[in-house]
This record gives sequence, structure tokens and C-alpha cells, in this order.
Amino acid sequence: MLYIGVDIGGMSLKIGVVNELGEIISKFTMNFDKNIPQEEMIKSLAIKINEHIKENNYTGVKGIGVSCAGVVNTKTGYCDFSANLNWINLDICGILKKYTSLDTKIANDANCAVLGEVKFGVAKNYHNVVMLTLGTGVGGGLYLDDKLYEGNQGKGAELGHSLFIYNGRKCACGLKGCFERYASASALISDTKKAMLKNKESLLWKYCNFNLDNVNGKVAFDCAKLNDKIAIKVVNKYISYLSYGILNFCNIFRPEVIILGGGISNQKENLTMPIKKILKESNYGYKNTPVVDVLIAKLGNDAGIIGAACLLMN
Amino acid sequence: MLYIGVDIGGMSLKIGVVNELGEIISKFTMNFDKNIPQEEMIKSLAIKINEHIKENNYTGVKGIGVSCAGVVNTKTGYCDFSANLNWINLDICGILKKYTSLDTKIANDANCAVLGEVKFGVAKNYHNVVMLTLGTGVGGGLYLDDKLYEGNQGKGAELGHSLFIYNGRKCACGLKGCFERYASASALISDTKKAMLKNKESLLWKYCNFNLDNVNGKVAFDCAKLNDKIAIKVVNKYISYLSYGILNFCNIFRPEVIILGGGISNQKENLTMPIKKILKESNYGYKNTPVVDVLIAKLGNDAGIIGAACLLMN
Repeated sequence: MLYIGVDIGGMSLKIGVVNELGEIISKFTMNFDKNIPQEEMIKSLAIKINEHIKENNYTGVKGIGVSCAGVVNTKTGYCDFSANLNWINLDICGILKKYTSLDTKIANDANCAVLGEVKFGVAKNYHNVVMLTLGTGVGGGLYLDDKLYEGNQGKGAELGHSLFIYNGRKCACGLKGCFERYASASALISDTKKAMLKNKESLLWKYCNFNLDNVNGKVAFDCAKLNDKIAIKVVNKYISYLSYGILNFCNIFRPEVIILGGGISNQKENLTMPIKKILKESNYGYKNTPVVDVLIAKLGNDAGIIGAACLLMN
Repeated sequence: MLYIGVDIGGMSLKIGVVNELGEIISKFTMNFDKNIPQEEMIKSLAIKINEHIKENNYTGVKGIGVSCAGVVNTKTGYCDFSANLNWINLDICGILKKYTSLDTKIANDANCAVLGEVKFGVAKNYHNVVMLTLGTGVGGGLYLDDKLYEGNQGKGAELGHSLFIYNGRKCACGLKGCFERYASASALISDTKKAMLKNKESLLWKYCNFNLDNVNGKVAFDCAKLNDKIAIKVVNKYISYLSYGILNFCNIFRPEVIILGGGISNQKENLTMPIKKILKESNYGYKNTPVVDVLIAKLGNDAGIIGAACLLMN
């Protein structure tokens, strides 16, 4: 049996054919054309999928799973809203089904990512998993009691918009103090810049070629390794934010494992080791509380395609 | 079929026999005797249950469900820790089973409460329900995708110990900034006292007979209704805290309904109306986000017995 996984990101559209072992046996990409109507975009995606199946003589394709960076409704199959793509009320599943005659399912990108990690990645054999993707925002994926938890209409698991500080930093979602305003790559970049502006002597300046526009989510970690005091402070603060957010999710879900994905997760044990230390010191639940492990996601750039394909697997 | 529901609170031990309609057909209480070993206490509970069944000629008793205010392990059936009762590693289910030969199950008290509300209370026919009990602490109960979610070993759903303010008020659990330090009855009492100390002219003083020891979770609401400015400020702040905590759980779980129980929930629509207003103004999820309702729990003092009995119903 084969599964089509479609990964609709903010910038790119990636399509892969996935087998039952979670291997991508072929893939292709499409460019977004914002000049054509949104429905036409999905129609041409359907046609490309048909062509790809035909060209490769694939048989036994079970259906199409869609991982979407926007706000989706898993029941209707619509993308209700995507700020990046400027989509509103787009019947993705309906259009794909109409033009391919294949079964279709859609889910939020972070939800697909956790499903992929559970089925074929680092979280195999776990029953309760919380995934955080640390990128532009913080995406949340919940795999609870052996299945994806998405909430009413698939609109739950917005862990990036869980409260971190009552009345804290303003968030694009309209609330104040959301977790992603402290723990995303964007937050780290913003905090790095702020620290640089206050500390002209920091190595960070040299490292960024004396241009704030060159600050990314990696420089603070790099300069911290080179013992720059300001960078160490920025990194420690970021890790403290992230750890207390993780601790929060431990107390809410008591999962067996927390999976970290997204750009910042490339820091691997520079990230997981100090987080585990803080968790160990502060894990709520008195005696006998099960330890929560912290692992780095494994599927990387293929997480969207593989996770989307998993939506159709049982 | 009949079910025994045991409600182990911090102060009292209540036992009820519950039928399939969720009605308590008989009940009795026991006093805690802290002078006898913890195992003996549970053994005498088992013997009392046997006697009660015999006296009433009950047949078809399916088993014993236990709602426990402490930290339990749903897998082993132990109460791992109860600060109030001074219990450590107490094999509640094992001892009850040994002396009654009945099936036994245990769960945290707030988890039992949400189960009772879903089966026989205010949350019938809902699929995703978050319950908060606003008492000494804030208890959390999660009913997700049509079943109780308890996390690894039944140690999840500690919503009172979810993060509300990073590095905020110190909590008895060892963390800082836990939600219950802002939204529990105890927090409201503490905030009421603080406001009184700063405002000697407030009606609150007269209402409490000029004695801070008389402050409870009701006085601020009472004086707010009488238009006392200080009381209004205390109540508004409390409701703001509670609302943003609820909003947080909306974004994490996207439930259909939030149920409020515990002492503070006696304020009924004085509580739910302003909360709903704040939710409506700030509910995350862009367009088409399903509205989350806020309801007051219905089972009241019987929630523990009925919820515990529900542990054995399918």
C-alpha cells in the first residue's frame, strides 16, 4: 500500500509517495502561485499528483494526507485560514478528492509531525508524546493514549499559544504572554538582538558581521560555545523559558517523552541536556513521578510528508 | 448493577452505593484515624463496605471506584502520596480487593469529578471537556475524545500546576507561578487580605467583623455586589486570572466546554458571565474557531462518590 503525503508549508509545497515502512519512494515540489485563485492551486496539485502516480505506474495508493501550516478543520477538510498563503475557507480535501478520486485527510503541520515521529521516528513505542516545533512560532503536537489529540474541529494543541506569562509579551494571535513569544526561534532572535544592542562589546556583533539583520537562531548558541558572556546569558534565558514551558506540559499531560523539532532543535544535546537538568530538579508530582524524557525529532524536513501520509495509516 | 464509590478527601471519607443512573441509593461516612497505620485504615474501610453491602442485601455489586485527593498511580492502584492524610505508597486498591473480593479502580479526585459530570452531570453528550475545581488548590480533570485522559501512571491533568506566570508566585509543589497560586480559593482569600491591608476603609473589613481570619472565598464577591470598590477590584483581578487560565486550556485542548467546580463555583453566573465575555474577546484560532462554553458543575458534594463509581462503568 502507498500513501501520498502533501506538506503545505508557509513557503513551499512538497509532495511525497510513502510506503508502509514510512520511506519516501519518490517526491516532487510545487511552487505557490499567489496570482491564481486558491481553488485553482489545489486543483493543479491534484492533477500533478495524478500525473506522478501515472508516470511511476504506482498501484495501491490508499489516499492523500495533507499537512497544513494554517488553521485547518479536520472534520470538513478545509484550511480555514492561512496567514502566509492568504487562504480563507479553502476546501483542500474536497478539491483533491474530486480530481484524484482518492481518500483525503488533513491535519495541522505540528500534529502531522508528532504522528510521523511516533510511527517512524524517534518516538516509536511511546503512548503519550508532546511535540514542540521551535521555528518562526512554536507548533504543538499531541499524541495521547496512543492517538493524535487534535481537539474540537482539530483546532487544539496550540501549545505555542498556551499562556507563559499572564499579561506578557504581545503575540500576533491577539493575546499577551503566549509561549511562542518566549520559546520560538523568532523570540530567540529578538532576544539576541536586544542583548546585542545593550552590549556592543559582545562577540555576537563580530559573528554577525556587525549587522543585526544577520542574527539568526544559531548565533547565540555558537557564541555561547565560544564563551561569550552575553551569548551565554541569552542562551541560558532561552533554555530557561523553554524548560519551564516543557515542565508546564509535563504537568498537564504527564507524557513519557517530549520531542523537539524545528530549527532550534539542531542544537541537539546543547538543548536537551540543560532542559533535562531543569526538569529533573523541578518535575512536579512528588515522589514516584515518572521521568519525562526529552528527545530531538528525527524526520527533519521530511516530517511533513511522512506525517501527512500517516494520517491514512492505521 | 451497583457500584461502590469511595471519595477520599483531605478531611473526610465518604462512601456511596451508586446505581446505573448515577443515583446514590445509600451512603455513609467514616472518620480518618491518623493514629492507626495507613493500611489498617483501608482495611477497616473494606470491612465497612462489606458490612454495608450485607446490611442492605445488595446484589450485583460490580466493584469499588476510589476518588483520591492525593497523588495516585492508576496502574498500580496505589496512593503514592497524600500531604493531608500523610499517606505514602499506600496500596489502596490491593487492600480493598483483598478484603472485599471486588474489582477496584482508583483515580485522582478531579479526574473522577469530570467523569461524573460527563456521565451524569452538566457535561453529558460532550466529547472534549476540561474541568477545573476551584478550592484550596485548582484541580484539573480532562475528558478528551470521549475518555478520561490521565497521562502516564494517571499523573497528568495537573492543571493547577500548569504555568501561569514564569517565575511567579511560589507554589507548595516547589515550582513558581503555578495557576493555582492565582485562581484557587486560597489565592483569592490571600489577595482579598492583601487588598484589605492596603485599604482600611473597604467594606470588606466590616463584612469580616474586622478580623482577617474571617476572610473566605465568598466575601470579595459579596462586597463586590454591594459596590465596594476594593472588592470589585479583587474580584475583577481574580476573574481575569481565571479567564486567562481558561483561555490557555482552550488553546491547548480546544474543548467544547469548560466545567467549573469547587467552592468558588457557587458564584455561578457571577463567574461564568464575565469569563465568557473575556473568552469571546480573546479566543485564539482566527475565524471559525468553535466557541467554548463555560458551565458550573452539577454534582456538587456527591461528585467524588459518583465520579469514582463511574470508573467501573463502560
